[in-house]
Amino acid sequence: MQRRYYDYASFLTDAKALAAALKGERIDCVVAVSRGGLTLAHFLAMALDTRNIALIRAVSYDGRRKLSAPKIERPPDLSGVKRALVADEIADSGETLKAVLGALSDRYPDTIFKSAVLFQKPTASIRADFFARESDEWIDFFWEVDPT
Amino acid sequence: MQRRYYDYASFLTDAKALAAALKGERIDCVVAVSRGGLTLAHFLAMALDTRNIALIRAVSYDGRRKLSAPKIERPPDLSGVKRALVADEIADSGETLKAVLGALSDRYPDTIFKSAVLFQKPTASIRADFFARESDEWIDFFWEVDPT
Repeated sequence: MQRRYYDYASFLTDAKALAAALKGERIDCVVAVSRGGLTLAHFLAMALDTRNIALIRAVSYDGRRKLSAPKIERPPDLSGVKRALVADEIADSGETLKAVLGALSDRYPDTIFKSAVLFQKPTASIRADFFARESDEWIDFFWEVDPT
Repeated sequence: MQRRYYDYASFLTDAKALAAALKGERIDCVVAVSRGGLTLAHFLAMALDTRNIALIRAVSYDGRRKLSAPKIERPPDLSGVKRALVADEIADSGETLKAVLGALSDRYPDTIFKSAVLFQKPTASIRADFFARESDEWIDFFWEVDPT
């Protein structure tokens, strides 16, 4: 698989494009999928001018054993939220995004959930409502590469 | 007050320096102070190789009225965490960091809490355990300026 280093400048362009596309969505909470969605969630919350950020974690492995479906840990309290945006870095297999959206919709049936990712894989089992790029490359995100 | 634009390159240098200083601390959870601490928490969690990120929010205003002390909203579930790092962008007045550390220590008396910020103001009421720079300038962080 082709690998691609995804740098801060590219991210900024994409985050701004996502924020522009999301302007009309009246998002009142950004849910960051940990860890990959954190920096994107921060930037989108700033651009969309919402102070309400929540965090959710999906665990795909139990030790070394891959779980049949990702397990949601510590779902956030979204009481009062009308239109939430779930932000992650990539819809790769799509299983994380699917599990997160499923768990949140079950728990908050009256909240409208939208999803946004930087990269959408064509083979993913779910398409995010908003994505900046479609690619089947392996992406090395700057927050994975730069600090280590 | 002097203003300074703080760019991604400077942030990366500082985040790496903080991560290096934190290596021996055996941090098993990074608590991001929302919103300002999110990107730093993401980078530190990557550098320190912890998957456990939590989020906390401190509210200083009720509408336009400044509260006498920041109010902690939605404290995270830190059960099982031994050594947590509270990450924020700046200790300015210091009141947010103080309130966050106070609320978390009250709730989790057996957890050891350390704090890390990018900027420490000399006049703040609290000094973070780890900080990258000391300054009394007004800082425009890149996540505040770049996406908007």
